[in-house]
Amino acid sequence: MQRTGYGDESPITAFATTPGNSALTLIRCSGKDSINMIASVFSPQKKLKEAPGNTVVHGWIVNKEKEDPECLEKVDEVLISVFRSPKSYTGEDCFDICCHGGFSAGKAVMDVLKSAGFRDALPGEFTFRAFINGKIDLTRSESVMELVSAKTNESRRHAVSRLSGALEKEINEIKMSLVKVVSGAEVYLDYSEDEVSADADEIAGKLAGIDIARKMLSRLKKLSDSWQLERIYRQGVTVVISGSPNAGKSSLFNCLLKEDRSIVTEIPGTTRDWIEAWVSVEGIPVRLVDTAGLRKSSDSVEKIGVERSIKILKEAHLILYLIDSTQGITEEDYIFLAEYSGRPILLLWTKKDIAPPQGLPEVVDNSPVFVSSKTGEGIAELYPAIGTAILAQISCREADLQMQTGSAVLLGTERQKKLVDAARASLEEALALAEAEEPLDLIAPLLRDAVNSLGEITGEVSTADILEEMFSNFCVGK
Amino acid sequence: MQRTGYGDESPITAFATTPGNSALTLIRCSGKDSINMIASVFSPQKKLKEAPGNTVVHGWIVNKEKEDPECLEKVDEVLISVFRSPKSYTGEDCFDICCHGGFSAGKAVMDVLKSAGFRDALPGEFTFRAFINGKIDLTRSESVMELVSAKTNESRRHAVSRLSGALEKEINEIKMSLVKVVSGAEVYLDYSEDEVSADADEIAGKLAGIDIARKMLSRLKKLSDSWQLERIYRQGVTVVISGSPNAGKSSLFNCLLKEDRSIVTEIPGTTRDWIEAWVSVEGIPVRLVDTAGLRKSSDSVEKIGVERSIKILKEAHLILYLIDSTQGITEEDYIFLAEYSGRPILLLWTKKDIAPPQGLPEVVDNSPVFVSSKTGEGIAELYPAIGTAILAQISCREADLQMQTGSAVLLGTERQKKLVDAARASLEEALALAEAEEPLDLIAPLLRDAVNSLGEITGEVSTADILEEMFSNFCVGK
Repeated sequence: MQRTGYGDESPITAFATTPGNSALTLIRCSGKDSINMIASVFSPQKKLKEAPGNTVVHGWIVNKEKEDPECLEKVDEVLISVFRSPKSYTGEDCFDICCHGGFSAGKAVMDVLKSAGFRDALPGEFTFRAFINGKIDLTRSESVMELVSAKTNESRRHAVSRLSGALEKEINEIKMSLVKVVSGAEVYLDYSEDEVSADADEIAGKLAGIDIARKMLSRLKKLSDSWQLERIYRQGVTVVISGSPNAGKSSLFNCLLKEDRSIVTEIPGTTRDWIEAWVSVEGIPVRLVDTAGLRKSSDSVEKIGVERSIKILKEAHLILYLIDSTQGITEEDYIFLAEYSGRPILLLWTKKDIAPPQGLPEVVDNSPVFVSSKTGEGIAELYPAIGTAILAQISCREADLQMQTGSAVLLGTERQKKLVDAARASLEEALALAEAEEPLDLIAPLLRDAVNSLGEITGEVSTADILEEMFSNFCVGK
Repeated sequence: MQRTGYGDESPITAFATTPGNSALTLIRCSGKDSINMIASVFSPQKKLKEAPGNTVVHGWIVNKEKEDPECLEKVDEVLISVFRSPKSYTGEDCFDICCHGGFSAGKAVMDVLKSAGFRDALPGEFTFRAFINGKIDLTRSESVMELVSAKTNESRRHAVSRLSGALEKEINEIKMSLVKVVSGAEVYLDYSEDEVSADADEIAGKLAGIDIARKMLSRLKKLSDSWQLERIYRQGVTVVISGSPNAGKSSLFNCLLKEDRSIVTEIPGTTRDWIEAWVSVEGIPVRLVDTAGLRKSSDSVEKIGVERSIKILKEAHLILYLIDSTQGITEEDYIFLAEYSGRPILLLWTKKDIAPPQGLPEVVDNSPVFVSSKTGEGIAELYPAIGTAILAQISCREADLQMQTGSAVLLGTERQKKLVDAARASLEEALALAEAEEPLDLIAPLLRDAVNSLGEITGEVSTADILEEMFSNFCVGK
């Protein structure tokens, strides 16, 4: 990657859609003089050059033929959406070229654009430019990638809320309140040397400042708490199906896959050792893993499989442990449950259609669920049971409840969480000093630190290195 | 599939790009009243409703919340390209909704569109409507799918030529010339009963007619011949690498894959029995197959593999048979070459870097090529050798030469080829009768048949059944 790329205005281009056997392919272009560059390989040229912003121009991408440069070869018939600076995604002149789908047309058009002077966009470079040109703040920039990688409808909903500016607004409100407190404090700092200390106004001002700071601290705490939950909705959790050989692991796996109408990610993948697929459980993206079984084996390949299965069991956010109702709890089951007693386990009695459950082992916290993968009995109850078992592991039921009603503002990235925690720490320290009646000149810098941390979240305060690091994790074309 | 779908004007929608981890997703909508339907789930509503054709409107797809229908949930931030009837792809009001990429945002927007009253488009239904509404003829409709499925840059070039109307123009010119001949003939038919037969004018007219018909027949023949070649560029050919176990099959396979900078189709696939990948050889899409080897085996799974390998060797358009230069031609090689002597084979001496070729077997037609996959020697010469060996199997070198200069008009589909051949047969029969001085009333119906067949190619003459059959082979979203 050219590190010099981010921040220049040179014309960039990238595929904005996945090449495939589809009707259309979208190529995005942006940058200084890009209109003339596209026009040089477009017919009718004049129509494109004169097109106002937010209009669509129909025509052909053309290429000068090698043998006869006077002769223009038609490369593809396209529609070009024209966006004029500053009214565009990047804030620059910007173009979406809609060409035919498949693997060939888009590639041919891209080749022509390269020959006309465009360079490949770096990951996230379009959004980087949007940020640099003041089109969106950093929380909204980040939400763009959150949205693209959202695994369930619920994850999408959270990202869209940030995209629409909900988090930016919340951060800015907290920040502006703290700025008022800081400037109030600084007024007293300026005056305190000349005047009598602690007159009635100053005390009232200090108390009001402390009151505001406390309220803002509580809002920062809520934001910080939300991250634990949001991370689950963003990144998903691993749920591993385990149990003795004939307990019905694969049947349950297939049953959950078939039942689930809300999968938005890829189709199942298969390895030698286990099968896995993403399913949506109460809006939580769940990577469901069916281990191949943990039987002892002397086959060296299978041994590696068993080792991998043990590793994934240890990493699992939840283990669904299946007990065969027709067999009852076996010695083997007790050994497993004892071995993994430190891990979150949800017990399932399987084969409800042919046998009743045979007593409850006391080794796990969650109430067991009784299901039949064959008839589907109990499966509807299984989803909330899994969801509850996952959420029980985090301590933010309050944020969860808010989220259900759609009113919560949630953090979207680790970066935001770190900065909120930094602001929170500074503010807590400032409050402790204020409550201990320490002098204002000790408190004010801490408040300014908190304000700066919040400014970094939205990108008001930022360095080139941090920005490049952040945007280079984006996908190309964004 | 609802057979009733094609031909109605109901609002339809489809993904026009492949869902994936991309920046954007494009959803296409078309149909009567579709503007109001989209507006009902869009904000700002008024701006969209009043948008002129060929403009882009920025806003949000929104959804009425279940709990509170007054409250609108933002589903995704989108750009909508507005096309007003008749200036659109389909000729109807038409919309391209550009939403965020990934698996979630597009799906959520699609769900909202469905709830607003859109139905899933049938395969090719957008292009079907474009044809029905007189936007494009059938040859151009077909070229849209040819373009999407084009496997090499050369295939794309041929499809684009048809998309720009080159074939439509050629067919129409031939047809109009024949119409003139027919109407001339019919003038004489009307008069011949009343007047003296065979006056000087009539003879001159007949001779001129025969001359035109002959010229048109020659143009039809060229078109018909072009199909054999075009089919190769469109559908590609299978080239199988074979040879004794250590002849360097996999090395050559990998070498060709690595060398090839012009692959436009998918990445290699692997099966237990063989590895295959698409490569471009002189613009011809080549499905290159590396068989796992044909050694005899008692393992039943491997036996199946060997059987499949034999099957693919028998179907191959060309076999690259590798001979290990360090070993010379072995007994095994002679047995293979004898067994497949009826099939097109190109002999390759491998390992040029360590040994010279050891004599030429007389069993194959093509001159052997001498290569080293390790150093790359001879690989540049191998491409034209493969291309020539493939094209040598068809008898249309003339069309090929024309194509190199870009001037040839080529047929794109089996359907077009059948109709051109039908027109050609009718015209040949008519000419034979005319030359035998048979009466005009026997000749004229044959000429009309030829004109009708040509009309069917462009869709001037067509039936609902044929159209449905044709468009249902398209991909959805086109």
